[in-house]
Amino acid sequence: MSRWKPDARGRLIKAAIELFAERGYDATTVTEIAERAGLTKRTFFRYFSDKREVLFYGSEELERIWLEALTATPTDASPLAAVMAGFDPIAELFEGRLPFARLRAEIIMANPELQERELIKLQRLAESIKAALVERGIAHDAAMLAAQTGLTVFHVAFARWVAQEDPTAFRRLIDESLDELSEVITAEPAATRRSSG
Amino acid sequence: MSRWKPDARGRLIKAAIELFAERGYDATTVTEIAERAGLTKRTFFRYFSDKREVLFYGSEELERIWLEALTATPTDASPLAAVMAGFDPIAELFEGRLPFARLRAEIIMANPELQERELIKLQRLAESIKAALVERGIAHDAAMLAAQTGLTVFHVAFARWVAQEDPTAFRRLIDESLDELSEVITAEPAATRRSSG
Repeated sequence: MSRWKPDARGRLIKAAIELFAERGYDATTVTEIAERAGLTKRTFFRYFSDKREVLFYGSEELERIWLEALTATPTDASPLAAVMAGFDPIAELFEGRLPFARLRAEIIMANPELQERELIKLQRLAESIKAALVERGIAHDAAMLAAQTGLTVFHVAFARWVAQEDPTAFRRLIDESLDELSEVITAEPAATRRSSG
Repeated sequence: MSRWKPDARGRLIKAAIELFAERGYDATTVTEIAERAGLTKRTFFRYFSDKREVLFYGSEELERIWLEALTATPTDASPLAAVMAGFDPIAELFEGRLPFARLRAEIIMANPELQERELIKLQRLAESIKAALVERGIAHDAAMLAAQTGLTVFHVAFARWVAQEDPTAFRRLIDESLDELSEVITAEPAATRRSSG
């Protein structure tokens, strides 16, 4: 039934998510998580520095596969194309995780401290993406704009994905978000800009 | 000489900025700030909850004038045009503040905790802008994309502004950043998107 492999880390994540769903994030203790997973508190702390980190473990994996895809694109790809390349493996990774992602999103939405943590993690991700673009010879500001655009599109698509039922929809929702962003920006009358291409 | 009016809050901000510049943010205490301002520690805490908040006092003013300009635009203005309207009064506000803004940016850049605080403040600002757009009848996602675009453009323009010498350049740098963002997004080959019109 479970999507988590029977490793200690996976069991701890599964137990934590169950308990957060049942009794709320704040009311759940590390001791309870370890007990539910059939492990000791000491084992918990071998894998996670605190309860909060259980929710953010996936963000390292996300960053790793995003950067791998980015650096694998041809060097003449546009900055945004390099950023967008990450969404293919990310969509694949996400396919099996919709129920978890939805529950996680609900927990984070209900807790301002977790919202801040999520925000900081996403911003660190944007900075890593920017740095990877700069390393490819992209100018600093163009790299920053492409990285922020990628994160904005990710943010909107992710919120849509957890609010619908098709686990495979993520990549399509990314494209839709980028289209909409493009419309929002081109809908701006050229008169308010210095030049228009 | 000083740009700060001789009110207690202004004196505290001026004293704090001087001390942060002289001996670093971490090494400066609230007691020292109050002393330098010729005020008591108790007075300090009437205006600021902690040392950190001295650096972030201006963000409330920024949000207020941005939202005022946004809500004053005609209701048929595009979401991004409504967001961009904020940059006229913001540029005016900033004109006299380049030395302060530069010093503040240096302090924040040197301190990860302050970077996180800045990030959270900027994200709260994006959320307020989004909410103001939604109130005007803009769809949630379009509002979010326009607000994030505004913040991205703000972020890039601000970094450029503090790195140059012309205090009046802010509005022009905003336009340049928006142009560049538009280029980054339209440089993306249409083939990677679902639709391109």
